[in-house]
Amino acid sequence: MLMSKLVGKTSKKIEDEFNIESQRLLLRSGMFRSVSPGTYSVLPLGKKVLDKLVELLSNELEKSDFQNVLIPPKEEFERTVSLALRNDMKSYKDLPKAIYDISNLERDKIKIKDGILKSKNYTGLRTMIFLKKEDAVIDGYEDMVKLYKDKLEEIGISIIGRESYNHKNPLGKAEELLFKCENGERIIYSCKKCGYSALNEMANFHVADCEIEGKELEPVHTPNIKTIKELVEFMDIDAKDLAKTLLVKADYEVIAVIIRGNRELNLYKLSKLLEVPLESIQMADYEDIGGKIQTVPGFVGPVGLEGIRLIVDREITKGDSLVTGANKKDYHLENVIYNRDFIGDIVADVSYIREEDRCPNCGEGLIKEYGIDIGKVLSLGKITDIKNMEYKNEDGKPQSIYGVSSHIDVYKLLSSIVEKHHDDDGIIWPAKVTPYDTIVSILNAKREEQVELGERLYNHLKEMNVNTILDDRKERAGAKFYDADLLGIPIRIVVAKGAAENKVELKLRWEKEKKEMDAERAVERVLEVLGKK
Amino acid sequence: MLMSKLVGKTSKKIEDEFNIESQRLLLRSGMFRSVSPGTYSVLPLGKKVLDKLVELLSNELEKSDFQNVLIPPKEEFERTVSLALRNDMKSYKDLPKAIYDISNLERDKIKIKDGILKSKNYTGLRTMIFLKKEDAVIDGYEDMVKLYKDKLEEIGISIIGRESYNHKNPLGKAEELLFKCENGERIIYSCKKCGYSALNEMANFHVADCEIEGKELEPVHTPNIKTIKELVEFMDIDAKDLAKTLLVKADYEVIAVIIRGNRELNLYKLSKLLEVPLESIQMADYEDIGGKIQTVPGFVGPVGLEGIRLIVDREITKGDSLVTGANKKDYHLENVIYNRDFIGDIVADVSYIREEDRCPNCGEGLIKEYGIDIGKVLSLGKITDIKNMEYKNEDGKPQSIYGVSSHIDVYKLLSSIVEKHHDDDGIIWPAKVTPYDTIVSILNAKREEQVELGERLYNHLKEMNVNTILDDRKERAGAKFYDADLLGIPIRIVVAKGAAENKVELKLRWEKEKKEMDAERAVERVLEVLGKK
Repeated sequence: MLMSKLVGKTSKKIEDEFNIESQRLLLRSGMFRSVSPGTYSVLPLGKKVLDKLVELLSNELEKSDFQNVLIPPKEEFERTVSLALRNDMKSYKDLPKAIYDISNLERDKIKIKDGILKSKNYTGLRTMIFLKKEDAVIDGYEDMVKLYKDKLEEIGISIIGRESYNHKNPLGKAEELLFKCENGERIIYSCKKCGYSALNEMANFHVADCEIEGKELEPVHTPNIKTIKELVEFMDIDAKDLAKTLLVKADYEVIAVIIRGNRELNLYKLSKLLEVPLESIQMADYEDIGGKIQTVPGFVGPVGLEGIRLIVDREITKGDSLVTGANKKDYHLENVIYNRDFIGDIVADVSYIREEDRCPNCGEGLIKEYGIDIGKVLSLGKITDIKNMEYKNEDGKPQSIYGVSSHIDVYKLLSSIVEKHHDDDGIIWPAKVTPYDTIVSILNAKREEQVELGERLYNHLKEMNVNTILDDRKERAGAKFYDADLLGIPIRIVVAKGAAENKVELKLRWEKEKKEMDAERAVERVLEVLGKK
Repeated sequence: MLMSKLVGKTSKKIEDEFNIESQRLLLRSGMFRSVSPGTYSVLPLGKKVLDKLVELLSNELEKSDFQNVLIPPKEEFERTVSLALRNDMKSYKDLPKAIYDISNLERDKIKIKDGILKSKNYTGLRTMIFLKKEDAVIDGYEDMVKLYKDKLEEIGISIIGRESYNHKNPLGKAEELLFKCENGERIIYSCKKCGYSALNEMANFHVADCEIEGKELEPVHTPNIKTIKELVEFMDIDAKDLAKTLLVKADYEVIAVIIRGNRELNLYKLSKLLEVPLESIQMADYEDIGGKIQTVPGFVGPVGLEGIRLIVDREITKGDSLVTGANKKDYHLENVIYNRDFIGDIVADVSYIREEDRCPNCGEGLIKEYGIDIGKVLSLGKITDIKNMEYKNEDGKPQSIYGVSSHIDVYKLLSSIVEKHHDDDGIIWPAKVTPYDTIVSILNAKREEQVELGERLYNHLKEMNVNTILDDRKERAGAKFYDADLLGIPIRIVVAKGAAENKVELKLRWEKEKKEMDAERAVERVLEVLGKK
């Protein structure tokens, strides 16, 4: 490729203000180009990296007997694959079956300031495995996680797996595949002492016992005080010393959930606890409550609350006496004590961790880290929502089919690579995904001997199957150095003044010094670096 | 690949009733699978063919300096590419630039009975070229058409190009790329004598002169007769002997279009005539007409119609005397003669051809043929709808940029190949797009010597880089023959009774007879057929 012909120029400025270095670099280098806020086109250099990433993962999947299919992007993936293949899996001899799909997908929620990490469109790699026995699901699941981790390690991306909410099968295992990095939007809490580590929404935390004073239950007149904030001010107490009673509708049941005033209700934990999918849980309307529960909106509390199940956060049961709603207009109760004044139907952890919380295992302080969620692996368990989804075993008896699915966001993976592999001057592509192996720069394209040697080198490298780009542009030397660094091609050969004596300079993108050598020696050196010799 | 592990079994029956053989074969062979009406998944064998087609076209485009990009599928292609690249084309040195994109696209209108030919999703290959001068557009355009025609000829698909409506630039050239075939839904009228040939919506036709009797204009009382059909019955005349006056709104102007009663108004022709895009033309509401025109809905006619432009179809000007509306409730006019009783502001061809029409060039009868519209090439002309879309020429003067775009529906192309290359037993894949080159069938998978020889052959062929599938299934011999024919793999090697003597049978899919030979000779023969030796 001649750089003078390349579609996608570099730019010093980009319109959007990104705080994320990888996003700035991908746009400045002309690998991606903004079309409208949140929507990007991928230009040729970016497309080459994307193709290499997809090929790398596809080859690995093919080695593990995954077969390539094409699923309409807007259909629900797991369901569509199951429907398409159920008639191919009628006998035990037909299992396991594993497929993968690579499609342009659309994201539900975009985040403009996160650039390509949360763009409207992205390239998704999706897999699905159908298996015979429930134990096989564990294998299929673990194998899938391992395949991704091992393969991405090869391009310098260390992936950590963290337990995650399984939106296809709330009771099944799911693992988020994360690349730890400051600019990630997923939060991870980790304990350096015992090694505990979990995603924000999954994290447990230590709850200390504390002595109970045992004062008597007392009503307090709290006229028109309806919010936690108003109550905290009015009574001059800490938010943690009061209990919020939230009325939640899960499927068709209205349930009261009691958590500390300084906590947020964690719907992921609640979904797993109730075995009700996330999308079927919502805050109850007053209509849902109707006349069935004797309480007053804004003054709901657990004491004397009847006709409804109470889910009590485990922190409530271990805490000091609390302030709660009195189920009576303009009244709250003081000195409420769990087990003395009310008991829950279920005691469980249903609230979000807070930054100051401590390790649930060892009580040590936790550190907060960030990660990019590159992908996810889901155990689907027994596939029950598709008719006729069963096979006959050796004895001719119908058996259920189990599933494992996974999903990789290749745009996020590409961004993670840049996030990891760059310096102040630009990207430094790992050899396996670089758009070109070598860039030959003709420093002064008006000097005939430089043009001649540059073209000769370029053709020689191409003959040796080295993927090369020739910077033949009539630009200043400074602009050429600047662009070469920005684009991050691993090996650079500069054809400059020494051209008359057949001398060139070779520099590796990740090293400071350049070395002068004969043109032929430079080709040899390139082949050595690329492991082709 | 082992056939026992292949995702996507063949089936004798398919749920949908297709009249189109290629659609039946693609579904029965398990290359495509219906997910819901009009939506298909592509299974591994189909995906391999699709990938080969895409690779074939991509390689050809790369040779012609097209570069691969990724454009968000739901954005308007030409506009998005222009926006993405306009800042890369500021100097004459930056042009031409050519890109291509391969994406899963969605069709606006699906047609369930046409299967994959009109499915909701399909793989689209789109290209865009930016050029300097207007003449260059002709070159870019013709080159694009030629590139596709030549490349598809290589896989046995003869493409014909026919002038087409240009929906991006109504006055610019556009060419539909068609594969002639009975099951195509596009209609082509051709003259065997002079070679005239055109798409239905673009076709002109011969209009004969005829003598005019010259009877006097006369009103006829036609109470409550509003439709052509009613009028034809009431007056006992032919539809062609009356003139329809249609009120059309083009942009903001209401225009009367007068055509023969037996013709349909051709909006494509009208769009080009008026230089108004198709989507800005519609039938006028009575609201649009308001009090501005003295007429009565249902009785509109050209005589005395004022305050509005009249477009008169050229057939009207050459015909006999006509019946028209009288612009008066319950009245029509008889013996209306063009030029005597009214004249048009524009006389033009604005109606659709009919089956019985004759060649516009030589007057010969026309034949009606059908084609699959595999793709389209569009001259975009000067790109004016994008801000800052200009480059500086050698003198530093700003100049406009011209464009050519094209679009190939790879699903239709794949279907056309099957439409062309099949027999009663199944598909016959051309060598360049076949999912596998060779199928080795172990006829009786319970016989050890057959299994052994089959596997040895399979491994040997793989070592020789022959893309091979091994039918190792424990199925009846009949089922194996049936499937091999259906799948259309070009070369079949059957390992049967002769296995003990190292004998196999080799058969080419397009030949009747099979030949017995030594296993080693069979491998040699395969290499010969594939041109690898």
